Amino acid sequence: MDTTIERSDTQQTQAAPATGRPRVVIIGGGFGGLNAARKFRHAPVDVTVIDRSNHFLFQPLLYQVATAELSPADISAPIRGVLRGQRNTRTVLANVTDVDVERREVIATDLGDGDEHRIPYDYLIIATGAHESYFGHNEWAERAPGLKSISDATAIRREILLAFETAELESDRERIEELMTFVIVGGGPTGVEMAGAIADLARKGIRRDFRAIDTAKARVLLVEAGPRLLPMFPKGLSKKAWGALRRLGVEVWLNAAVKQVDADGVVVGDKHIRAQTVIWAAGVQASPAAQWLGVAPAKAGRVTVGPDLTVEGHPEIYVLGDTASALDRDGQPLPGVASVAIQQGHYAARAILERARKHDPAAPLAPFRYFDRGYLATVGRTYAIGEIGPLQLSGFPAWAVWAGVHIAYLIGFRNRVLVLMQWLWKYLTFQRSARLITRDPRETRAGFLPTSYHRQ
Amino acid sequence: MDTTIERSDTQQTQAAPATGRPRVVIIGGGFGGLNAARKFRHAPVDVTVIDRSNHFLFQPLLYQVATAELSPADISAPIRGVLRGQRNTRTVLANVTDVDVERREVIATDLGDGDEHRIPYDYLIIATGAHESYFGHNEWAERAPGLKSISDATAIRREILLAFETAELESDRERIEELMTFVIVGGGPTGVEMAGAIADLARKGIRRDFRAIDTAKARVLLVEAGPRLLPMFPKGLSKKAWGALRRLGVEVWLNAAVKQVDADGVVVGDKHIRAQTVIWAAGVQASPAAQWLGVAPAKAGRVTVGPDLTVEGHPEIYVLGDTASALDRDGQPLPGVASVAIQQGHYAARAILERARKHDPAAPLAPFRYFDRGYLATVGRTYAIGEIGPLQLSGFPAWAVWAGVHIAYLIGFRNRVLVLMQWLWKYLTFQRSARLITRDPRETRAGFLPTSYHRQ
Repeated sequence: MDTTIERSDTQQTQAAPATGRPRVVIIGGGFGGLNAARKFRHAPVDVTVIDRSNHFLFQPLLYQVATAELSPADISAPIRGVLRGQRNTRTVLANVTDVDVERREVIATDLGDGDEHRIPYDYLIIATGAHESYFGHNEWAERAPGLKSISDATAIRREILLAFETAELESDRERIEELMTFVIVGGGPTGVEMAGAIADLARKGIRRDFRAIDTAKARVLLVEAGPRLLPMFPKGLSKKAWGALRRLGVEVWLNAAVKQVDADGVVVGDKHIRAQTVIWAAGVQASPAAQWLGVAPAKAGRVTVGPDLTVEGHPEIYVLGDTASALDRDGQPLPGVASVAIQQGHYAARAILERARKHDPAAPLAPFRYFDRGYLATVGRTYAIGEIGPLQLSGFPAWAVWAGVHIAYLIGFRNRVLVLMQWLWKYLTFQRSARLITRDPRETRAGFLPTSYHRQ
Repeated sequence: MDTTIERSDTQQTQAAPATGRPRVVIIGGGFGGLNAARKFRHAPVDVTVIDRSNHFLFQPLLYQVATAELSPADISAPIRGVLRGQRNTRTVLANVTDVDVERREVIATDLGDGDEHRIPYDYLIIATGAHESYFGHNEWAERAPGLKSISDATAIRREILLAFETAELESDRERIEELMTFVIVGGGPTGVEMAGAIADLARKGIRRDFRAIDTAKARVLLVEAGPRLLPMFPKGLSKKAWGALRRLGVEVWLNAAVKQVDADGVVVGDKHIRAQTVIWAAGVQASPAAQWLGVAPAKAGRVTVGPDLTVEGHPEIYVLGDTASALDRDGQPLPGVASVAIQQGHYAARAILERARKHDPAAPLAPFRYFDRGYLATVGRTYAIGEIGPLQLSGFPAWAVWAGVHIAYLIGFRNRVLVLMQWLWKYLTFQRSARLITRDPRETRAGFLPTSYHRQ
């Protein structure tokens, strides 16, 4: 009765319908890629958006998923849904493995059957972002997860909540301390936001839920190798963020490089800190686009691009966002933030449309200019710092701007009202709405038949 | 620098603080267990609630998580949060492995360190529910997951969405048909609800999102071994549900027993149906409470209890809900529904309080009586059937009652308004709010460093 037919993993060419119009392929459905894609609606081009995830992720709020304040779906939108009405655009869920720059094809593997697909392009936009960098110590990844995807966030949420649950049942004092120690490596925005949010969770969010332990006694330690937090901000604001974290009960170590991450915790300088939970927010490494294109990677693995965001010798290939090494008009490298990726996405789409209209893929164009709207970073519940043009903000006013900006950005998602409600609810009740410890499916499937079942 | 200290998995006794008051231990934080626990607030007892999950799950809506309509957090509430204000009650996140009925101790393993804990009781309530039964074919579990936990639901959601994504990229027609065939085994409420919701998703929810495939052509096949769907309902209503499913484009096979589940699909009678996705909703098996107690299991592994819900020879042990085999006043077995578990939870708590007050654990009591408020089952978006006392409802009126009852039950969750909003949004826009394909953390951690990274 077994009618299995062996299927070979033949290469398939999944071309968009041959319309004779220029084919634009966009790798990456993040801020850069999706903003480029949206610019092509109504344009006489055929667009393919490739991502290995089926959803756009609003990364700036990811730390709130990791600390059980928001649900994954609150900060995600299916890429297909975003591009639903854009009939010249198709979405491909696949893992890009290479780019054939000679034949102008993207090579990708689908996530279901693992078949290889070759997707031809006339213009290519690479906006594939970055992942954590362990500075040559990739073996630390398992022990000290970073925060880049929904899966990362739910895994960190599970670790944090499970540490408190285990401490509640533990009788050994040293083990309790270890379980209630949270080390965050890296004093950039993600590290500062995570440290503030974990301190907030422990001091207020869940304190009344436990009986044996006082979660407010959790030790939250933020370790930064450089001399100050949030180095992209003016010194005065860095210091204010430092003060705000201290008031939340976060221990901040500056000039403190992590030398080792092991099963028990971390080694910082000559100190070994025993900690159950270690979170990595210390640096990023660009996706391997340089390798796909066969060019020498710039700092952090980025691809060097010219003033029009294309790769030297390949005027048809644009690289954006965290994947690109682009310079501002003053020769400074552009920061790895969402607004850079968004503006670059818009620029690349406009450039392609103009050059396609002129039938000249290398037609001269005004160079990309980043319009700096400012930077914001939150520290705990209602404190933020911000630099907006000549203005330096801190405290609740900065937080209000931060909240407003983020809610405004969430327009387009239908989640805006939900996010607002979750927040309001949280602020009114100090409750966490998304405090789920979920297992991964395989654990559950393996675990549900043995003798020790009870209702989950 | 490695300062690892070997920790032995010593047995620890985690007694509640010795207050001299009766110790009530409740295993299971589902409908039965939590409703019992809530009855003990302000009572002169010390309560411990043990669950291997940290959240209460509103199981009747779980199929909506599996079909991307709701997020996990929308239908879950942290058990600690529910019991937060109840100071005589503590929550233990642990996996129960046995009950020592002689020493009156529950034996459980925590989920963090895996230490064993012995938790003493004077009264024990077991409300640990049930899991899928594969009728002796546990090897089918991997291929045909059931729907009992959040992890099950997100795994099924992933399978369903990924099947469409893979079909979109496939060129082989037979393989496309296989990818777009969804077999649901079992014509009870879960099977009917899943079949209706998948048909709805394919026909309407995501149809405009795909370019190469027409998702409306998906084949949804509901296979039931018995002669009719929803056998707990009157025949007329079963037939109406059957008609409603047919109108949704669900193929229904009755008197069709599944003989085999293999890598390619299922064998039903002498037919082999090739299907990528197989979902199991064909039967349940009680949790192994009978084994813990050393009693002979009744049908489906349940524990036989007397009219006061206690186990023969153990007036201090109550068994509830899907774990118990209890008879109604007419000698019929009680159905495995939430309202039975809720009412039994209330009864058990009242019984324990009365017997504790009389210092007689076997004091005679009025037997448990189930008050039948009726049954409802949904079929697709706006159709349901219901039997409420002498009343038989079908169509939109039944659906309206169903929606009202479920929203009302969600009171106590803060999620009620959110659930309502999600629904409204969905009905207004035909969009799915929770259409996330998430990986399990281990896949992500293993997958994020190789050469094929791009932004997820």
